[in-house]
Amino acid sequence: MRMAGWGGFFVSLLNYKTEKYVIAENKKIGILFRLYQLAVLGYIIGWVFVVRKGYQEREEAIQTSVITKLKGVTLTNSSETGLHLWSAEDYVIPPNGEQVFFVVTNYIETPNQRLGFCAESFKVPNGRCQSDDDCVVGETVIAGHGIKTGLCLNSTGTCQIRAWCPVEHSQRPTEPLLSAAENFTIYIKNFIRFPKFEFSKSNVLETSDDSYLKRCSYDRENHLYCPIFRLGDLVSWTGYDFQGMAAKGGSVGIVIEWNCDLDKDSTQCNPQYSFTRLDLKLNKSVTSGYNFRYARYYKDQNDVTFRTLYKVYGIRFDIMVNGQAGKFNIVPTIIAIGSGVALLGAGAFACDMILLYMMNTSSFYRERKFEIINFKYV
Amino acid sequence: MRMAGWGGFFVSLLNYKTEKYVIAENKKIGILFRLYQLAVLGYIIGWVFVVRKGYQEREEAIQTSVITKLKGVTLTNSSETGLHLWSAEDYVIPPNGEQVFFVVTNYIETPNQRLGFCAESFKVPNGRCQSDDDCVVGETVIAGHGIKTGLCLNSTGTCQIRAWCPVEHSQRPTEPLLSAAENFTIYIKNFIRFPKFEFSKSNVLETSDDSYLKRCSYDRENHLYCPIFRLGDLVSWTGYDFQGMAAKGGSVGIVIEWNCDLDKDSTQCNPQYSFTRLDLKLNKSVTSGYNFRYARYYKDQNDVTFRTLYKVYGIRFDIMVNGQAGKFNIVPTIIAIGSGVALLGAGAFACDMILLYMMNTSSFYRERKFEIINFKYV
Amino acid sequence: MRMAGWGGFFVSLLNYKTEKYVIAENKKIGILFRLYQLAVLGYIIGWVFVVRKGYQEREEAIQTSVITKLKGVTLTNSSETGLHLWSAEDYVIPPNGEQVFFVVTNYIETPNQRLGFCAESFKVPNGRCQSDDDCVVGETVIAGHGIKTGLCLNSTGTCQIRAWCPVEHSQRPTEPLLSAAENFTIYIKNFIRFPKFEFSKSNVLETSDDSYLKRCSYDRENHLYCPIFRLGDLVSWTGYDFQGMAAKGGSVGIVIEWNCDLDKDSTQCNPQYSFTRLDLKLNKSVTSGYNFRYARYYKDQNDVTFRTLYKVYGIRFDIMVNGQAGKFNIVPTIIAIGSGVALLGAGAFACDMILLYMMNTSSFYRERKFEIINFKYV
Repeated sequence: MRMAGWGGFFVSLLNYKTEKYVIAENKKIGILFRLYQLAVLGYIIGWVFVVRKGYQEREEAIQTSVITKLKGVTLTNSSETGLHLWSAEDYVIPPNGEQVFFVVTNYIETPNQRLGFCAESFKVPNGRCQSDDDCVVGETVIAGHGIKTGLCLNSTGTCQIRAWCPVEHSQRPTEPLLSAAENFTIYIKNFIRFPKFEFSKSNVLETSDDSYLKRCSYDRENHLYCPIFRLGDLVSWTGYDFQGMAAKGGSVGIVIEWNCDLDKDSTQCNPQYSFTRLDLKLNKSVTSGYNFRYARYYKDQNDVTFRTLYKVYGIRFDIMVNGQAGKFNIVPTIIAIGSGVALLGAGAFACDMILLYMMNTSSFYRERKFEIINFKYV
Repeated sequence: MRMAGWGGFFVSLLNYKTEKYVIAENKKIGILFRLYQLAVLGYIIGWVFVVRKGYQEREEAIQTSVITKLKGVTLTNSSETGLHLWSAEDYVIPPNGEQVFFVVTNYIETPNQRLGFCAESFKVPNGRCQSDDDCVVGETVIAGHGIKTGLCLNSTGTCQIRAWCPVEHSQRPTEPLLSAAENFTIYIKNFIRFPKFEFSKSNVLETSDDSYLKRCSYDRENHLYCPIFRLGDLVSWTGYDFQGMAAKGGSVGIVIEWNCDLDKDSTQCNPQYSFTRLDLKLNKSVTSGYNFRYARYYKDQNDVTFRTLYKVYGIRFDIMVNGQAGKFNIVPTIIAIGSGVALLGAGAFACDMILLYMMNTSSFYRERKFEIINFKYV
Repeated sequence: MRMAGWGGFFVSLLNYKTEKYVIAENKKIGILFRLYQLAVLGYIIGWVFVVRKGYQEREEAIQTSVITKLKGVTLTNSSETGLHLWSAEDYVIPPNGEQVFFVVTNYIETPNQRLGFCAESFKVPNGRCQSDDDCVVGETVIAGHGIKTGLCLNSTGTCQIRAWCPVEHSQRPTEPLLSAAENFTIYIKNFIRFPKFEFSKSNVLETSDDSYLKRCSYDRENHLYCPIFRLGDLVSWTGYDFQGMAAKGGSVGIVIEWNCDLDKDSTQCNPQYSFTRLDLKLNKSVTSGYNFRYARYYKDQNDVTFRTLYKVYGIRFDIMVNGQAGKFNIVPTIIAIGSGVALLGAGAFACDMILLYMMNTSSFYRERKFEIINFKYV
């Protein structure tokens, strides 16, 4: 092949160059290599393509919007503060239908607190005292309710403080006051979008039957697109007892998972709900339970402010949406195939090593496989 | 090539071993193979590198912080409850500048509710009755306002209930009471960070001109970094009418997208806003509209609690930030190139198959391409 | 190799076909090629496997739940409105332990506002006037407090408005009223889950010692699993001064990062905290500071509503959790190895190009490397 300048070069470009092979009639190595090829092919087709869907581009950054609404009313009757009627505007905090919300199931009410002087609660270690020296004027009681005035009250064994008086003192009721919350219902509307694939869906049935969403109830089999749950069911699906959790409070995660294969029909892309308790009860440590305080402020006829303090125990629901979608794309397909093909080459290299160095016919094989070009004699 | 022990082995390591090629002077296969090579090269350069930026490492886990603030005042005049002045502290719920917030555009006020006994609303199916037997004592009215007392009231045809009385009864005004909310403005401050690349940016112009952010208004062309929007514009960009949505409420998603090529200058990394309606209006189903209730509690001179209940309709804004950044990285570059190169090998394999088995010169070609090493005669 | 039908074909399948090599005894090219092979091997082992952990499947979609609780009490004494006692239910907004919350550090109180007529504040540019013509009846004051009545008040130089009167007029105190907030503590409970690997962890020590979480304090070295922080420390770790930020307000991002190598023990998967200020103080622009308003509503004996307006300045804490986990998986391992192997092939191609076209022994080499099959003479 002598090239007559550029013309010849271009003609030679059109020749098909291919590796020259030697065939080693060695059945052991031959079978070994074919098995390896089958294994690689099996891996590429079986694992990468069928199980892991390696031909798909994946989108994990899901866009999501959640709206919640609770229904139910209950009456509580506490010996100290009388009757209370709790409806959704009271027991859902915040009331505006957020993704993370809290349902009151138990509470301690401390009515008619006014700014003044009173004894710190004995439950606060830093507030206890033996003499006035333990109550430094102006110091804040650590984890307490107010500012020390310098007096130690003998009657209670605690410092006098400037605080909202009287301070909260009641014991948490062992039975949840709002035990009827078990029958409240929650409606969770979730809208998702995979921006990369411009695909969006909602977890609510798109029906023309107005009353369906008023009477249905979630059921994995038959009513997957009716996102209405009984609170008691939600909690029991986490493996805990509602009444038990209602007394001290707790935290429940509702995970909505959307795993969508967008190469299939969109009806195959369905939400999957799972429920977990997020405040783990390990060794009765302080990490379990959930409560916080809020106050309602009033003014009396003389324009003096007073307040009612509520310490509420309850269940915090945290709706977490995650998901991923996959759709055929040429780039990951080629990366998956290409790296598999490259692996075939690695197998041939290994077989060559065996033939060249580890068999008694090696030197014979070497002489046939390699052709020496000795540039010294050119 | 006879090796004189290890020395010879190391010398032979420095020889360059290369495949022996046969050149098949077959123009058809030659052209086919060159075209295939061009196609693979075109794919690698054009698609993987130019379009998909396959040489970049991608970061999709964006860190983001959003602060919002609304401005505007309006006066409502309802025949039943008189004048109301709505300013941001009232119509934005919650008022503290969150990423998801609600703007009141319409409401039903039920003032001076007190705990007592009254008739359930006729709109609640479970509260209607023919006789006292329909009103089981102590039962909660499903989706209703209170607890049944056992009496059926003939005057209304509903059970008597213990509830906050009188129960809410007004019709939702067909015209939004806060129609002026169309002119309220919303300021959205968004700060983002791509932790993997230690890159951060904000959607607010960094200017020394104090007054710019007081008078500017968002405009995709000229004022991209002025994130101040008129509510009416926001809604109209979703393709809906503000006054229509204001009456029943709705949910609007504001997506801020940051697609940043960090190999370029940071000024090329700009936010892109898009606006979608999240409560789909399909067949007038219950899924459209947005409302919730909240109450304000008061105490009278005798220390008895009463409240004003508000059922508010409005627009829920849900600001979703997502984005991704890409920056040159050697690993994805090599994966992209390597798998392309491997594909070139796959093409040579296909051309070989054609030459070896599908042409009338196949056996001739086979004899030249393959050299048989027969180990039997060693 | 003549095949006797299919039988012979299958026998030939078991032969091991391997490329025939030519050995170019050219030390320069040989060394070059070996160096290249070493570089590729070094890249695959060192960079892809050791540094980037390319053999791992990665999960970036972390599921996370955050609960916060603040402790501390302080007394403020403002000359205008008297004593106030601030406890967590007052200064944390919202009070229910969310991931994004606001701590009041300074405020302006405007007590006893009633709906009525009064002068607009002179600070609002749109409210100033020379004559009644500047005050169009029914027009809203832009960025103001009410609706113009048409009168221009000479005493103040501003329009008369229908608003909650008197309008807010006080100056922000230059010293933060709640400067003691520096000593408040915040407890941050974070629970994470990597759904792909079914791995979950919390940032709170799982101890049976009840009192540990009552007295410990976060310390990167010794108390990594005690997520209790002093507010003053949090702010100082962002590089800013607490008292300075407390006066005007600000926004602090608390990033909790979980980078977990799940091939190792789960005790190696620890949270990393970092703290950044999110409202950048550039050129004293309006983007720095953080405040909002809220109101408390009261009714007097005559059932007339009045309110107290609070403009609160403070620090918004935004807890951002992100993380990624990696675990050995066969697919990325093979993609990383495969593409490296393919690269070795690319190096051989480059060495061939040099030998074939760029050396004076090229034509000799060409003749030995290539064997021409000329189909013309078949």
